[in-house]
Amino acid sequence: MKRIREFGIEIGSFPTGARNQITDVAGVKVGHKTLAKGEIQTGVTSIIPGEGNIFQEKFIAASHVFNGFGKTTGLVQINELGTLETPILLTNTLSAGTCTTALVRYMLKQDETIGSSTGTVNPVVGECNDMVLNNIRNFSVSEADALEALENAQVNMQEGSVGAGRGMKCFGLKGGVGTSSRKLTYEHGEYTIGVLVLSNFGKLEEFRLNGQLVGPQLKTQLNEETDEVDKGSIMMIVATDLPVTSSQLKRIIKRTGNGLSRTGSFMGNGSGDVVIGYSTANRVPHASKKLQQMRVVHENDLDQAFLAVADTTEEAILNSMVKAETVTGRNETTLHSLYKYIDNLMRRG
Amino acid sequence: MKRIREFGIEIGSFPTGARNQITDVAGVKVGHKTLAKGEIQTGVTSIIPGEGNIFQEKFIAASHVFNGFGKTTGLVQINELGTLETPILLTNTLSAGTCTTALVRYMLKQDETIGSSTGTVNPVVGECNDMVLNNIRNFSVSEADALEALENAQVNMQEGSVGAGRGMKCFGLKGGVGTSSRKLTYEHGEYTIGVLVLSNFGKLEEFRLNGQLVGPQLKTQLNEETDEVDKGSIMMIVATDLPVTSSQLKRIIKRTGNGLSRTGSFMGNGSGDVVIGYSTANRVPHASKKLQQMRVVHENDLDQAFLAVADTTEEAILNSMVKAETVTGRNETTLHSLYKYIDNLMRRG
Amino acid sequence: MKRIREFGIEIGSFPTGARNQITDVAGVKVGHKTLAKGEIQTGVTSIIPGEGNIFQEKFIAASHVFNGFGKTTGLVQINELGTLETPILLTNTLSAGTCTTALVRYMLKQDETIGSSTGTVNPVVGECNDMVLNNIRNFSVSEADALEALENAQVNMQEGSVGAGRGMKCFGLKGGVGTSSRKLTYEHGEYTIGVLVLSNFGKLEEFRLNGQLVGPQLKTQLNEETDEVDKGSIMMIVATDLPVTSSQLKRIIKRTGNGLSRTGSFMGNGSGDVVIGYSTANRVPHASKKLQQMRVVHENDLDQAFLAVADTTEEAILNSMVKAETVTGRNETTLHSLYKYIDNLMRRG
Amino acid sequence: MKRIREFGIEIGSFPTGARNQITDVAGVKVGHKTLAKGEIQTGVTSIIPGEGNIFQEKFIAASHVFNGFGKTTGLVQINELGTLETPILLTNTLSAGTCTTALVRYMLKQDETIGSSTGTVNPVVGECNDMVLNNIRNFSVSEADALEALENAQVNMQEGSVGAGRGMKCFGLKGGVGTSSRKLTYEHGEYTIGVLVLSNFGKLEEFRLNGQLVGPQLKTQLNEETDEVDKGSIMMIVATDLPVTSSQLKRIIKRTGNGLSRTGSFMGNGSGDVVIGYSTANRVPHASKKLQQMRVVHENDLDQAFLAVADTTEEAILNSMVKAETVTGRNETTLHSLYKYIDNLMRRG
Repeated sequence: MKRIREFGIEIGSFPTGARNQITDVAGVKVGHKTLAKGEIQTGVTSIIPGEGNIFQEKFIAASHVFNGFGKTTGLVQINELGTLETPILLTNTLSAGTCTTALVRYMLKQDETIGSSTGTVNPVVGECNDMVLNNIRNFSVSEADALEALENAQVNMQEGSVGAGRGMKCFGLKGGVGTSSRKLTYEHGEYTIGVLVLSNFGKLEEFRLNGQLVGPQLKTQLNEETDEVDKGSIMMIVATDLPVTSSQLKRIIKRTGNGLSRTGSFMGNGSGDVVIGYSTANRVPHASKKLQQMRVVHENDLDQAFLAVADTTEEAILNSMVKAETVTGRNETTLHSLYKYIDNLMRRG
Repeated sequence: MKRIREFGIEIGSFPTGARNQITDVAGVKVGHKTLAKGEIQTGVTSIIPGEGNIFQEKFIAASHVFNGFGKTTGLVQINELGTLETPILLTNTLSAGTCTTALVRYMLKQDETIGSSTGTVNPVVGECNDMVLNNIRNFSVSEADALEALENAQVNMQEGSVGAGRGMKCFGLKGGVGTSSRKLTYEHGEYTIGVLVLSNFGKLEEFRLNGQLVGPQLKTQLNEETDEVDKGSIMMIVATDLPVTSSQLKRIIKRTGNGLSRTGSFMGNGSGDVVIGYSTANRVPHASKKLQQMRVVHENDLDQAFLAVADTTEEAILNSMVKAETVTGRNETTLHSLYKYIDNLMRRG
Repeated sequence: MKRIREFGIEIGSFPTGARNQITDVAGVKVGHKTLAKGEIQTGVTSIIPGEGNIFQEKFIAASHVFNGFGKTTGLVQINELGTLETPILLTNTLSAGTCTTALVRYMLKQDETIGSSTGTVNPVVGECNDMVLNNIRNFSVSEADALEALENAQVNMQEGSVGAGRGMKCFGLKGGVGTSSRKLTYEHGEYTIGVLVLSNFGKLEEFRLNGQLVGPQLKTQLNEETDEVDKGSIMMIVATDLPVTSSQLKRIIKRTGNGLSRTGSFMGNGSGDVVIGYSTANRVPHASKKLQQMRVVHENDLDQAFLAVADTTEEAILNSMVKAETVTGRNETTLHSLYKYIDNLMRRG
Repeated sequence: MKRIREFGIEIGSFPTGARNQITDVAGVKVGHKTLAKGEIQTGVTSIIPGEGNIFQEKFIAASHVFNGFGKTTGLVQINELGTLETPILLTNTLSAGTCTTALVRYMLKQDETIGSSTGTVNPVVGECNDMVLNNIRNFSVSEADALEALENAQVNMQEGSVGAGRGMKCFGLKGGVGTSSRKLTYEHGEYTIGVLVLSNFGKLEEFRLNGQLVGPQLKTQLNEETDEVDKGSIMMIVATDLPVTSSQLKRIIKRTGNGLSRTGSFMGNGSGDVVIGYSTANRVPHASKKLQQMRVVHENDLDQAFLAVADTTEEAILNSMVKAETVTGRNETTLHSLYKYIDNLMRRG
């Protein structure tokens, strides 16, 4: 299955990173554990944010909640301290607790000081509700599954109906995991910004493909009733090596909303639209009595990153849809891949 | 000059109000005072939120700042109390202080108790920077101008290069005041939601006309260099008669960002992207020892308002552009009206 | 062991509820499961917010984070929707994931529709780090323990070194669970407001007993070095039957900070100072197509609740300390009860 | 009239700066213009944040609103960009517009580029309502008064019933301007933190003098009915040379609330409790294409600043009261100085 660029759709004018993936940011790895059997269509996706001991050398981070019908864990501390000190796990809504515990165990193994000589650790777990395809009441995800997703992390990541994306639904079609990246050029150097999305939102009639309102036409083709209600969500992860403060990063990641909106999202009442971002520049030691030296881009120079993150998000969402294979799950419900319809849509566009 | 619907562009599927203006919400009036002479191209726009003594019978209100490079006055108290107790004035950035004082004087005249037997009043003044066309250092707006804008308020409002919109620039073209409205149908009744924008934002290359990326083509036609930087802003005012709490209203008005994004905004660093909303249902007495009775829509039923406000905002922005006449101002700079180009753009679309 | 009032210390002038407990608010129950064996000194505390099916008839709720070095779960959704739909669990930091899963299971048992015909549920779990006395790396709390705390819930609640309070440390002394309540008298009726705290914060030298700075004297008596650093936290739960909106409730619960400050807290960097509040008036149905009728107190009439919640919080903290028995745990560390010193302190006061 | 330390009251254990004023932070100056004639008892206070061209070399800044019944101008942009680019003016509520315009004019004079070749400027004006003593409906403060307050700025600042403090009321007594400072010692150097308050809040019965609840006793002595309602406000300005990010500064200035609470504030509904802070380290150029180099203290090392700012705020409030002379104003109302009662209070303490 081809990615959206292979259909001739290019979002914005910034060049993409080498793989056009979040993993173009040096050090980032992504892993999946997929559970796909009958009414169990779910999984876990891990984002390893970078190299080294993450707890001892934290990342500058920020989060933003566009709409908070969601159960993401770890935002309270990210908001206060502006740092990320664990990998990020994504899963289905009711498995957030299990993944939280798994991630804590993973961190305790990596660092003997946590909870013994130093304080505790802040696990970050995002989620979307995959109950359309998955029997979410079954608590199918185990701690072992979460650990496997962490172990599976690699630079060449998979997209679509994999990992946490297995059971997701986007604009009435099959959603899932998608990614994209952009290169930013400043006088002081070149940087990369990447986005990974877990797409599970939207009302079919509102779907816009590169600006074109194709939802109504798709609805006719699909010849089905779709939900009136947007009960979905989207988790967005932004990684960059641009040297920024937590406040600047917060400003940057808010622009995922601009890309998200262009696809037709109205951030429905029942949607958990959440973004978490981090920068691999300026790692922050767990403790230090010294003054920290930071390099940061000037506030006036953020526009490039603002626009790029909007473009990258829009493309990541389209990738999550076009790369997602058709899946049949709970109650024999089938969600169809955009892949089947896109050629036809583009001919008419 | 025609409005955007007269070119066959309809945003979304909700029916519009009778006038397709914010004034379709019963009681709302809008007035302008325009200053247009040489390098003075600026003005004031007033929004009278509804009938009666606004200070004694306040409106439930909310505000949201998408990007805060702006000087809007009055948000601290709106955020705390969730009420609006004055009309809203819009003007150029450096005249916000003058309009604040004028608005206070206006309120003191209307209500003898303010500052004598009861407390003070919270004036609400929004602004955008019109320095591209206007000599903003001249402080051309007087208190008398602000009062005139208030007096001029009427139900049939004007759009375009009028009032505070006189000197504004949007996507490298002429911006200004625009409006639109939608009707919402619930089991418990029919309601109206209206949006007024003061548009002064955007990078030409990013301009999307009903989803279509026409900016690059326009740039070629205009054959000029446009700013690299988005220094502009947008003020958005949302009025509705839907019965909501302040928290619900905040959720609704955040969706102006979805409509704004669809036009190509990435909420640039130098942009003050601010929305203020209020509801004419459930007026709040200045003081009372009794329990207040409120009727409110159920949270689950907000989706309709979310989508409608996004659509209305997108249309109001397009109206602000297509209704704005070409203006020449400071430094002999001319900003052209979208009106001149739209037929051509739509033929190619 | 006596409560703080039995030592003649009365905070503020409002009358207390019948039990001077959070359970004075009708319908509230509190339960504990305590684990106390050697280096395992921890537990779970449950707050059942009221009668009936909590998921189907939700409570208006709000939360506020004074300092976010904490891992509380569930705040994203409370902040967005302003409702509480589960009991609240408190536990040690690393057991938050386990308690989250336990609470979800508990809710799924109570309501067959969750995750099958309706959406998901938002579990609310607070935590403090009890690693001074408890081997937190041992993950001693099981899902069964959490369920037991829920089953143990009753109107006559216990305070001190019980439940989640077992391992907590406050101002260098033994902390734990404490509670207090106040009666509010309005023209339209009488209401109750109650606070429950899980105290685990503070630097001994800063401890103020009813305003008197007794910390330095206590430090001399204890004749020990205490931490330079405030690594602790405080979870505060506010319950009331005052009819309020979520925004009003947020304003009320922020005043726990005023009571907390009076005891000598400076909300240290490593402290998770979090408050969650809810009202038992105006229950919110899970779904409804009808307009909701709400009764709400006027904004001007909140002062009484503001002051009362500050007083109640201060008293609840003192109760958590004076009712906490001395405990010896991990590394043979002993934390002493304020109970042993208070007579002496008051003689000198 | 003596300051509070001269009565033997020392808040906390940090050493004060040389003058125990906000001006102990190098570069800070404070000026007043006082209007005192009959029913006109008001004024303006200016804070010059530091040396040089403030617009071209901005200060890292932050703000926090404890309770937002207030009309402070300029916070939207401080919150977004985390910088301060003008002096700060304080005045009475209804004169905020006039002071805003005056401050803009002052800045335009200092920098020719504002509004001509670069963008606009963000004036910062705080206010409290002095209508108990001042005929606030008279708009007595002129732009010239504001400019005079700016010109009067000096290192040896005055406290009490001067400048914006002229008409203020605190705990039923005379409020006004107060200040205090502390020295912080880190391994990497010594720093100063200073607080200036404009006190206009509080209910007499709740007044705590260094922890001791003296309000009820004072009320008896004053033998008068005082307001049931806290309609006042407090503006707090924090200056420091500690090298911090805007996020860290926000965390620090929030702890003014801890000091404020210790005096007996419950942040009443009608109170505008607002703090603005800035750091003179790491000045930020108006524009730059280069990476900025910042030195910042480690997050773990903020506790010292947290505690110090709480102590400093408490002392600044007490100074504002004890240094404020008795004033008679509007409606022949007299507000008495704490100075008259403090000896007596301390004898009984």
